Amino acid sequence: MTEPYELYYWPILPGRGEFVRLVLEEAAAPYVDVARLPEEEGGGFTPLLEFVQGGRPGQPAYAPPILVHGELVLAQSAAICAYLGERHGLAPAETGKRMQALQLQLTVADVTDEAHNTHHPINSSIYYEDQKDAGRRASRHFLDQRLGRFLTYFERVLERNGGQWLVGDAVTYPELSLFQLLEGLAHAFPKGFAQAAEETPLLLALRDRVAKRPRIAAYLASDRRLAFNEHGVFRYYPELDLSD
Amino acid sequence: MTEPYELYYWPILPGRGEFVRLVLEEAAAPYVDVARLPEEEGGGFTPLLEFVQGGRPGQPAYAPPILVHGELVLAQSAAICAYLGERHGLAPAETGKRMQALQLQLTVADVTDEAHNTHHPINSSIYYEDQKDAGRRASRHFLDQRLGRFLTYFERVLERNGGQWLVGDAVTYPELSLFQLLEGLAHAFPKGFAQAAEETPLLLALRDRVAKRPRIAAYLASDRRLAFNEHGVFRYYPELDLSD
Repeated sequence: MTEPYELYYWPILPGRGEFVRLVLEEAAAPYVDVARLPEEEGGGFTPLLEFVQGGRPGQPAYAPPILVHGELVLAQSAAICAYLGERHGLAPAETGKRMQALQLQLTVADVTDEAHNTHHPINSSIYYEDQKDAGRRASRHFLDQRLGRFLTYFERVLERNGGQWLVGDAVTYPELSLFQLLEGLAHAFPKGFAQAAEETPLLLALRDRVAKRPRIAAYLASDRRLAFNEHGVFRYYPELDLSD
Repeated sequence: MTEPYELYYWPILPGRGEFVRLVLEEAAAPYVDVARLPEEEGGGFTPLLEFVQGGRPGQPAYAPPILVHGELVLAQSAAICAYLGERHGLAPAETGKRMQALQLQLTVADVTDEAHNTHHPINSSIYYEDQKDAGRRASRHFLDQRLGRFLTYFERVLERNGGQWLVGDAVTYPELSLFQLLEGLAHAFPKGFAQAAEETPLLLALRDRVAKRPRIAAYLASDRRLAFNEHGVFRYYPELDLSD
Protein backbone atom coordinates (compact mmCIF):
# COMPACT_ATOMS: atom_id res chain seq x y z
CA MET A 1 0.00 0.00 0.00
CA THR A 2 1.60 3.25 -1.07
CA GLU A 3 -1.18 5.73 -0.28
CA PRO A 4 -0.39 8.16 2.52
CA TYR A 5 -1.33 7.31 6.07
CA GLU A 6 -4.22 9.17 7.64
CA LEU A 7 -3.90 10.13 11.28
CA TYR A 8 -6.99 11.10 13.28
CA TYR A 9 -6.32 12.88 16.54
CA TRP A 10 -7.65 15.85 18.51
CA PRO A 11 -6.39 18.85 16.55
CA ILE A 12 -5.69 21.15 19.50
CA LEU A 13 -3.32 19.15 21.68
CA PRO A 14 -0.20 16.96 21.28
CA GLY A 15 -1.43 14.21 23.66
CA ARG A 16 -0.97 10.60 22.65
CA GLY A 17 -1.20 11.52 18.96
CA GLU A 18 2.29 12.96 19.25
CA PHE A 19 3.81 9.51 19.81
CA VAL A 20 2.43 8.55 16.41
CA ARG A 21 3.51 11.76 14.68
CA LEU A 22 7.10 11.32 15.83
CA VAL A 23 7.29 7.86 14.22
CA LEU A 24 5.75 9.15 10.98
CA GLU A 25 8.19 12.06 10.92
CA GLU A 26 11.29 9.97 11.66
CA ALA A 27 10.18 7.53 8.96
CA ALA A 28 9.61 10.42 6.51
CA ALA A 29 6.31 8.68 5.76
CA PRO A 30 3.68 10.70 3.88
CA TYR A 31 0.67 11.33 6.12
CA VAL A 32 -2.36 13.53 6.44
CA ASP A 33 -3.17 14.84 9.91
CA VAL A 34 -6.86 14.80 9.08
CA ALA A 35 -8.42 16.68 11.98
CA ARG A 36 -5.94 19.53 11.52
CA LEU A 37 -7.14 20.22 8.00
CA PRO A 38 -9.61 23.10 7.65
CA GLU A 39 -13.21 21.99 8.20
CA GLU A 40 -14.07 22.63 4.57
CA GLU A 41 -11.43 20.07 3.62
CA GLY A 42 -12.82 17.45 5.98
CA GLY A 43 -10.86 18.44 9.09
CA GLY A 44 -11.94 19.41 12.60
CA PHE A 45 -13.68 17.29 15.19
CA THR A 46 -16.34 15.79 12.91
CA PRO A 47 -14.24 13.02 11.34
CA LEU A 48 -12.95 12.01 14.77
CA LEU A 49 -16.39 11.78 16.28
CA GLU A 50 -17.58 9.69 13.35
CA PHE A 51 -14.97 7.12 14.24
CA VAL A 52 -15.61 7.09 17.94
CA GLN A 53 -19.36 6.84 17.44
CA GLY A 54 -18.94 3.86 15.12
CA GLY A 55 -20.00 5.62 11.94
CA ARG A 56 -16.97 4.51 9.92
CA PRO A 57 -16.30 1.08 8.47
CA GLY A 58 -13.46 -1.11 9.71
CA GLN A 59 -12.56 -2.23 13.21
CA PRO A 60 -14.15 0.19 15.68
CA ALA A 61 -11.86 2.49 17.66
CA TYR A 62 -12.61 3.34 21.27
CA ALA A 63 -10.67 6.60 21.12
CA PRO A 64 -8.11 8.52 19.06
CA PRO A 65 -5.36 8.33 17.94
CA ILE A 66 -6.53 6.33 14.94
CA LEU A 67 -4.43 5.44 11.91
CA VAL A 68 -6.02 4.59 8.58
CA HIS A 69 -3.86 2.83 6.03
CA GLY A 70 -5.76 1.49 3.04
CA GLU A 71 -8.33 -0.91 4.48
CA LEU A 72 -6.71 -0.99 7.89
CA VAL A 73 -8.14 1.05 10.75
CA LEU A 74 -5.93 0.89 13.82
CA ALA A 75 -6.29 2.56 17.22
CA GLN A 76 -4.22 2.64 20.43
CA SER A 77 -1.02 4.67 20.19
CA ALA A 78 1.29 1.79 21.17
CA ALA A 79 -0.23 -0.49 18.51
CA ILE A 80 0.02 2.24 15.88
CA CYS A 81 3.64 3.00 16.78
CA ALA A 82 4.48 -0.72 16.65
CA TYR A 83 2.80 -1.05 13.25
CA LEU A 84 4.62 1.96 11.80
CA GLY A 85 7.87 1.04 13.50
CA GLU A 86 7.84 -2.43 11.99
CA ARG A 87 7.01 -1.12 8.51
CA HIS A 88 9.67 1.61 8.51
CA GLY A 89 12.72 0.03 10.10
CA LEU A 90 12.09 1.62 13.50
CA ALA A 91 11.51 -1.68 15.31
CA PRO A 92 13.89 -4.62 15.83
CA ALA A 93 13.39 -7.49 13.38
CA GLU A 94 14.09 -10.33 15.82
CA THR A 95 10.95 -11.47 17.67
CA GLY A 96 12.22 -11.22 21.23
CA LYS A 97 13.68 -7.74 20.71
CA ARG A 98 10.56 -6.66 18.82
CA MET A 99 8.53 -7.60 21.88
CA GLN A 100 10.96 -5.84 24.21
CA ALA A 101 10.46 -2.67 22.16
CA LEU A 102 6.72 -3.09 22.72
CA GLN A 103 7.33 -3.64 26.43
CA LEU A 104 9.21 -0.34 26.65
CA GLN A 105 6.51 1.46 24.68
CA LEU A 106 3.91 0.16 27.13
CA THR A 107 5.95 1.38 30.07
CA VAL A 108 6.18 4.82 28.44
CA ALA A 109 2.37 4.62 28.13
CA ASP A 110 2.06 3.71 31.82
CA VAL A 111 4.10 6.73 32.90
CA THR A 112 2.03 8.88 30.55
CA ASP A 113 -1.15 7.61 32.20
CA GLU A 114 0.23 8.32 35.67
CA ALA A 115 1.23 11.83 34.62
CA HIS A 116 -2.31 12.39 33.31
CA ASN A 117 -3.67 11.00 36.56
CA THR A 118 -1.97 13.80 38.53
CA HIS A 119 -4.47 16.31 37.15
CA HIS A 120 -7.36 13.89 36.56
CA PRO A 121 -7.23 11.32 39.35
CA ILE A 122 -10.97 10.81 39.72
CA ASN A 123 -11.77 10.49 36.05
CA SER A 124 -10.57 11.98 32.80
CA SER A 125 -14.07 13.20 31.97
CA ILE A 126 -14.39 15.51 35.01
CA TYR A 127 -12.87 19.02 34.80
CA TYR A 128 -9.55 19.56 36.54
CA GLU A 129 -11.09 22.32 38.64
CA ASP A 130 -13.55 19.78 40.04
CA GLN A 131 -10.85 17.36 41.19
CA LYS A 132 -8.12 19.78 42.14
CA ASP A 133 -7.65 18.61 45.74
CA ALA A 134 -7.33 15.00 44.68
CA GLY A 135 -4.98 16.18 41.94
CA ARG A 136 -2.71 17.90 44.43
CA ARG A 137 -2.50 14.72 46.47
CA ALA A 138 -1.92 12.55 43.40
CA SER A 139 0.84 14.75 42.04
CA ARG A 140 2.62 14.98 45.38
CA HIS A 141 2.65 11.21 45.44
CA PHE A 142 3.73 10.94 41.83
CA LEU A 143 6.68 13.27 42.39
CA ASP A 144 7.70 11.71 45.72
CA GLN A 145 7.29 8.04 44.96
CA ARG A 146 6.95 7.33 41.27
CA LEU A 147 8.72 9.72 38.92
CA GLY A 148 12.22 8.92 40.15
CA ARG A 149 11.57 5.19 39.97
CA PHE A 150 10.30 5.45 36.41
CA LEU A 151 13.25 7.51 35.24
CA THR A 152 15.71 5.23 36.99
CA TYR A 153 14.08 2.26 35.32
CA PHE A 154 14.69 3.64 31.84
CA GLU A 155 18.19 4.71 32.83
CA ARG A 156 18.93 1.11 33.81
CA VAL A 157 17.54 -0.17 30.49
CA LEU A 158 19.94 2.14 28.66
CA GLU A 159 22.87 1.19 30.90
CA ARG A 160 22.31 -2.53 30.35
CA ASN A 161 22.24 -2.03 26.60
CA GLY A 162 25.47 -0.03 26.35
CA GLY A 163 24.12 3.45 27.13
CA GLN A 164 22.93 4.69 23.78
CA TRP A 165 19.94 2.65 22.62
CA LEU A 166 17.01 1.21 24.50
CA VAL A 167 16.95 -2.07 22.58
CA GLY A 168 19.21 -3.43 19.87
CA ASP A 169 21.70 -1.07 18.23
CA ALA A 170 19.57 1.47 16.42
CA VAL A 171 16.81 3.95 17.04
CA THR A 172 13.38 2.37 17.63
CA TYR A 173 9.89 3.76 18.09
CA PRO A 174 9.94 3.59 21.93
CA GLU A 175 12.94 5.93 21.90
CA LEU A 176 10.95 8.54 20.04
CA SER A 177 8.10 8.14 22.52
CA LEU A 178 10.46 8.30 25.47
CA PHE A 179 11.76 11.61 24.10
CA GLN A 180 8.20 12.94 24.06
CA LEU A 181 7.53 11.62 27.55
CA LEU A 182 10.63 13.38 28.91
CA GLU A 183 9.64 16.62 27.17
CA GLY A 184 6.15 16.30 28.60
CA LEU A 185 7.33 15.63 32.13
CA ALA A 186 9.74 18.58 31.97
CA HIS A 187 6.87 20.78 30.82
CA ALA A 188 4.39 19.59 33.44
CA PHE A 189 6.79 19.45 36.39
CA PRO A 190 9.72 21.78 35.69
CA LYS A 191 11.04 21.59 39.25
CA GLY A 192 10.11 17.99 39.99
CA PHE A 193 11.55 16.71 36.73
CA ALA A 194 14.79 18.70 37.01
CA GLN A 195 15.38 17.23 40.44
CA ALA A 196 14.59 13.62 39.47
CA ALA A 197 16.57 13.78 36.23
CA GLU A 198 19.79 14.70 38.03
CA GLU A 199 20.18 10.95 38.58
CA THR A 200 19.60 9.94 34.97
CA PRO A 201 22.25 11.44 32.66
CA LEU A 202 21.90 8.74 29.98
CA LEU A 203 18.22 9.53 29.69
CA LEU A 204 18.85 13.25 29.23
CA ALA A 205 21.48 12.48 26.62
CA LEU A 206 18.99 10.26 24.78
CA ARG A 207 16.44 13.06 24.82
CA ASP A 208 18.93 15.50 23.31
CA ARG A 209 20.10 12.97 20.73
CA VAL A 210 16.55 12.34 19.53
CA ALA A 211 15.86 16.09 19.30
CA LYS A 212 18.90 16.48 17.04
CA ARG A 213 18.05 13.73 14.58
CA PRO A 214 17.69 15.66 11.30
CA ARG A 215 14.07 14.72 10.57
CA ILE A 216 12.98 15.19 14.17
CA ALA A 217 14.78 18.55 14.40
CA ALA A 218 13.06 19.71 11.21
CA TYR A 219 9.72 18.54 12.54
CA LEU A 220 10.17 20.23 15.90
CA ALA A 221 10.93 23.51 14.12
CA SER A 222 7.87 23.19 11.85
CA ASP A 223 4.30 24.29 12.45
CA ARG A 224 3.25 20.63 12.36
CA ARG A 225 4.58 20.34 15.93
CA LEU A 226 1.99 21.33 18.53
CA ALA A 227 3.17 22.98 21.73
CA PHE A 228 2.12 21.56 25.09
CA ASN A 229 -0.85 23.43 26.46
CA GLU A 230 -3.58 23.08 29.07
CA HIS A 231 -5.29 20.25 27.24
CA GLY A 232 -4.11 16.73 26.95
CA VAL A 233 -1.75 14.70 29.05
CA PHE A 234 1.13 16.98 30.03
CA ARG A 235 -0.13 20.21 31.58
CA TYR A 236 1.69 22.76 33.64
CA TYR A 237 -0.23 23.61 36.78
CA PRO A 238 2.25 25.28 39.17
CA GLU A 239 0.31 23.96 42.17
CA LEU A 240 1.01 20.39 41.06
CA ASP A 241 4.78 20.79 40.75
CA LEU A 242 7.28 20.71 43.61
CA SER A 243 7.13 23.82 45.73
CA ASP A 244 10.34 25.73 46.41
CA MET B 1 13.45 -23.18 22.51
CA THR B 2 11.61 -26.05 24.11
CA GLU B 3 12.27 -25.32 27.78
CA PRO B 4 9.18 -24.39 29.79
CA TYR B 5 8.22 -20.76 30.20
CA GLU B 6 8.76 -19.16 33.57
CA LEU B 7 6.12 -16.73 34.78
CA TYR B 8 6.90 -14.33 37.63
CA TYR B 9 3.89 -12.71 39.25
CA TRP B 10 2.61 -11.88 42.74
CA PRO B 11 1.60 -15.26 44.15
CA ILE B 12 -1.44 -14.11 46.12
CA LEU B 13 -3.63 -12.40 43.52
CA PRO B 14 -4.83 -13.00 39.94
CA GLY B 15 -4.20 -9.41 38.78
CA ARG B 16 -2.57 -8.84 35.42
CA GLY B 17 -0.70 -12.13 35.68
CA GLU B 18 -3.97 -13.89 34.96
CA PHE B 19 -4.05 -12.53 31.40
CA VAL B 20 -0.77 -14.35 30.83
CA ARG B 21 -1.85 -17.57 32.54
CA LEU B 22 -4.94 -17.83 30.37
CA VAL B 23 -2.84 -17.72 27.19
CA LEU B 24 -0.41 -20.31 28.56
CA GLU B 25 -3.29 -22.58 29.56
CA GLU B 26 -5.17 -22.27 26.25
CA ALA B 27 -1.90 -22.99 24.44
CA ALA B 28 -1.23 -25.99 26.70
CA ALA B 29 2.27 -24.59 27.00
CA PRO B 30 4.46 -25.95 29.79
CA TYR B 31 5.19 -23.23 32.36
CA VAL B 32 6.36 -22.75 35.89
CA ASP B 33 4.52 -20.17 37.97
CA VAL B 34 7.69 -19.39 39.86
CA ALA B 35 6.49 -17.24 42.75
CA ARG B 36 3.82 -19.80 43.61
CA LEU B 37 6.40 -22.50 44.24
CA PRO B 38 7.31 -23.10 47.89
CA GLU B 39 10.06 -20.77 49.09
CA GLU B 40 12.49 -23.66 49.47
CA GLU B 41 12.04 -24.35 45.75
CA GLY B 42 12.75 -20.73 44.81
CA GLY B 43 9.20 -19.41 45.05
CA GLY B 44 7.67 -16.54 47.02
CA PHE B 45 8.33 -12.84 46.71
CA THR B 46 12.13 -13.02 46.59
CA PRO B 47 12.55 -13.93 42.90
CA LEU B 48 10.08 -11.19 41.93
CA LEU B 49 11.85 -8.53 43.92
CA GLU B 50 15.16 -9.55 42.40
CA PHE B 51 13.75 -8.72 38.99
CA VAL B 52 12.18 -5.46 39.96
CA GLN B 53 15.31 -4.29 41.76
CA GLY B 54 17.43 -5.05 38.73
CA GLY B 55 19.29 -8.01 40.21
CA ARG B 56 18.62 -10.35 37.28
CA PRO B 57 20.28 -10.29 33.87
CA GLY B 58 18.36 -9.44 30.72
CA GLN B 59 16.18 -6.45 29.90
CA PRO B 60 15.04 -4.87 33.17
CA ALA B 61 11.36 -5.14 34.08
CA TYR B 62 9.58 -2.29 35.80
CA ALA B 63 6.95 -4.57 37.34
CA PRO B 64 5.50 -8.07 37.12
CA PRO B 65 4.18 -10.00 35.25
CA ILE B 66 7.49 -11.09 33.77
CA LEU B 67 7.99 -13.98 31.38
CA VAL B 68 11.33 -15.71 31.01
CA HIS B 69 11.86 -17.86 27.96
CA GLY B 70 15.44 -18.99 27.42
CA GLU B 71 17.45 -15.78 27.14
CA LEU B 72 14.39 -13.59 26.73
CA VAL B 73 13.06 -11.59 29.68
CA LEU B 74 9.79 -9.88 28.83
CA ALA B 75 7.50 -7.71 30.96
CA GLN B 76 4.16 -5.94 30.39
CA SER B 77 1.16 -8.24 30.22
CA ALA B 78 0.04 -7.11 26.76
CA ALA B 79 3.52 -7.68 25.30
CA ILE B 80 3.75 -11.11 26.95
CA CYS B 81 0.30 -12.11 25.70
CA ALA B 82 1.20 -10.95 22.19
CA TYR B 83 4.45 -12.91 22.29
CA LEU B 84 2.77 -16.10 23.48
CA GLY B 85 -0.22 -15.59 21.19
CA GLU B 86 2.00 -15.30 18.15
CA ARG B 87 4.03 -18.37 19.08
CA HIS B 88 1.04 -20.59 19.81
CA GLY B 89 -1.49 -19.81 17.10
CA LEU B 90 -3.51 -17.47 19.32
CA ALA B 91 -2.84 -14.35 17.25
CA PRO B 92 -3.72 -13.57 13.63
CA ALA B 93 -0.89 -14.11 11.17
CA GLU B 94 -1.66 -11.18 8.87
CA THR B 95 0.06 -7.96 10.00
CA GLY B 96 -2.98 -5.66 10.11
CA LYS B 97 -5.08 -8.16 12.05
CA ARG B 98 -2.17 -8.96 14.34
CA MET B 99 -2.02 -5.27 15.20
CA GLN B 100 -5.78 -5.08 15.68
CA ALA B 101 -5.50 -7.92 18.18
CA LEU B 102 -2.92 -5.83 20.03
CA GLN B 103 -5.22 -2.81 19.85
CA LEU B 104 -8.00 -4.80 21.53
CA GLN B 105 -5.62 -6.13 24.17
CA LEU B 106 -4.56 -2.57 24.98
CA THR B 107 -8.18 -1.49 25.31
CA VAL B 108 -8.77 -4.40 27.71
CA ALA B 109 -5.73 -3.08 29.61
CA ASP B 110 -7.22 0.43 29.67
CA VAL B 111 -10.49 -0.79 31.16
CA THR B 112 -8.49 -2.83 33.67
CA ASP B 113 -6.60 0.31 34.68
CA GLU B 114 -9.82 2.28 35.07
CA ALA B 115 -11.33 -0.48 37.19
CA HIS B 116 -8.24 -0.40 39.38
CA ASN B 117 -8.51 3.37 39.57
CA THR B 118 -11.95 3.09 41.22
CA HIS B 119 -10.33 1.86 44.41
CA HIS B 120 -6.95 3.54 43.98
CA PRO B 121 -7.61 6.89 42.27
CA ILE B 122 -4.87 8.87 44.00
CA ASN B 123 -2.12 6.34 43.58
CA SER B 124 -1.74 2.58 43.58
CA SER B 125 0.80 2.73 46.37
CA ILE B 126 -1.55 4.34 48.94
CA TYR B 127 -3.92 2.05 50.92
CA TYR B 128 -7.53 1.94 49.79
CA GLU B 129 -8.66 3.05 53.23
CA ASP B 130 -6.66 6.25 52.79
CA GLN B 131 -8.33 7.19 49.49
CA LYS B 132 -11.81 5.83 50.09
CA ASP B 133 -13.69 9.09 49.48
CA ALA B 134 -11.94 9.67 46.18
CA GLY B 135 -12.60 6.01 45.39
CA ARG B 136 -16.30 6.40 45.92
CA ARG B 137 -16.36 9.34 43.56
CA ALA B 138 -14.22 7.58 40.97
CA SER B 139 -16.34 4.44 41.01
CA ARG B 140 -19.61 6.35 40.74
CA HIS B 141 -18.20 8.02 37.68
CA PHE B 142 -16.85 4.79 36.26
CA LEU B 143 -20.22 3.08 36.59
CA ASP B 144 -22.24 6.03 35.30
CA GLN B 145 -20.09 7.19 32.43
CA ARG B 146 -17.50 4.63 31.43
CA LEU B 147 -18.41 1.00 32.01
CA GLY B 148 -21.35 0.98 29.60
CA ARG B 149 -19.32 2.70 26.92
CA PHE B 150 -16.50 0.21 27.24
CA LEU B 151 -18.80 -2.80 27.07
CA THR B 152 -20.72 -1.35 24.13
CA TYR B 153 -17.44 -0.78 22.36
CA PHE B 154 -16.46 -4.46 22.56
CA GLU B 155 -20.00 -5.48 21.63
CA ARG B 156 -19.69 -3.40 18.46
CA VAL B 157 -16.33 -5.00 17.64
CA LEU B 158 -17.96 -8.43 17.88
CA GLU B 159 -20.98 -7.34 15.85
CA ARG B 160 -18.82 -5.95 13.04
CA ASN B 161 -16.87 -9.19 12.87
CA GLY B 162 -19.88 -11.51 12.67
CA GLY B 163 -20.68 -11.87 16.37
CA GLN B 164 -18.40 -14.67 17.48
CA TRP B 165 -14.78 -13.57 17.29
CA LEU B 166 -13.11 -10.27 18.07
CA VAL B 167 -10.72 -10.38 15.13
CA GLY B 168 -10.35 -12.88 12.31
CA ASP B 169 -12.18 -16.20 12.57
CA ALA B 170 -10.58 -17.95 15.50
CA VAL B 171 -9.87 -17.44 19.16
CA THR B 172 -7.07 -14.94 19.88
CA TYR B 173 -5.32 -13.81 23.05
CA PRO B 174 -7.43 -10.63 23.52
CA GLU B 175 -10.52 -12.84 23.75
CA LEU B 176 -9.03 -14.70 26.68
CA SER B 177 -8.17 -11.40 28.35
CA LEU B 178 -11.62 -9.98 27.66
CA PHE B 179 -13.08 -13.05 29.39
CA GLN B 180 -10.97 -12.27 32.44
CA LEU B 181 -11.91 -8.60 32.33
CA LEU B 182 -15.63 -9.45 32.27
CA GLU B 183 -15.20 -11.89 35.15
CA GLY B 184 -13.32 -9.24 37.08
CA LEU B 185 -15.90 -6.52 36.46
CA ALA B 186 -18.72 -8.88 37.49
CA HIS B 187 -16.81 -9.65 40.68
CA ALA B 188 -16.02 -6.03 41.53
CA PHE B 189 -19.38 -4.52 40.57
CA PRO B 190 -22.03 -7.25 40.72
CA LYS B 191 -24.90 -4.78 40.41
CA GLY B 192 -23.25 -2.27 38.11
CA PHE B 193 -21.96 -4.91 35.75
CA ALA B 194 -25.27 -6.81 35.59
CA GLN B 195 -27.05 -3.62 34.63
CA ALA B 196 -24.53 -2.54 31.99
CA ALA B 197 -24.23 -6.01 30.47
CA GLU B 198 -27.96 -6.20 29.71
CA GLU B 199 -27.08 -4.28 26.56
CA THR B 200 -24.24 -6.55 25.47
CA PRO B 201 -25.48 -10.11 24.83
CA LEU B 202 -22.69 -10.98 22.38
CA LEU B 203 -20.14 -10.12 25.02
CA LEU B 204 -21.78 -12.34 27.63
CA ALA B 205 -21.96 -15.17 25.10
CA LEU B 206 -18.25 -14.74 24.39
CA ARG B 207 -17.47 -14.91 28.09
CA ASP B 208 -19.41 -18.17 28.42
CA ARG B 209 -17.85 -19.63 25.28
CA VAL B 210 -14.34 -18.95 26.55
CA ALA B 211 -15.17 -20.48 29.94
CA LYS B 212 -16.28 -23.68 28.20
CA ARG B 213 -13.21 -24.16 26.03
CA PRO B 214 -11.86 -27.51 27.25
CA ARG B 215 -8.44 -26.31 28.37
CA ILE B 216 -9.84 -23.15 29.97
CA ALA B 217 -12.59 -25.11 31.73
CA ALA B 218 -10.00 -27.55 33.10
CA TYR B 219 -7.84 -24.66 34.23
CA LEU B 220 -10.70 -22.81 35.93
CA ALA B 221 -11.52 -25.99 37.86
CA SER B 222 -7.91 -26.51 38.94
CA ASP B 223 -6.05 -25.11 41.90
CA ARG B 224 -3.81 -23.19 39.51
CA ARG B 225 -6.66 -20.68 39.13
CA LEU B 226 -6.59 -17.98 41.79
CA ALA B 227 -9.90 -16.54 42.99
CA PHE B 228 -10.45 -12.79 43.01
CA ASN B 229 -9.75 -11.32 46.42
CA GLU B 230 -9.09 -8.00 48.08
CA HIS B 231 -5.73 -7.59 46.44
CA GLY B 232 -5.04 -6.75 42.86
CA VAL B 233 -7.17 -5.09 40.25
CA PHE B 234 -10.71 -6.40 40.66
CA ARG B 235 -11.90 -6.05 44.25
CA TYR B 236 -15.38 -6.20 45.64
CA TYR B 237 -16.07 -3.26 47.92
CA PRO B 238 -19.87 -3.01 48.29
CA GLU B 239 -19.61 0.75 48.80
CA LEU B 240 -18.11 1.14 45.33
CA ASP B 241 -20.86 -0.77 43.51
CA LEU B 242 -24.25 0.63 42.52
CA SER B 243 -26.53 1.08 45.48
CA ASP B 244 -30.01 -0.50 45.38
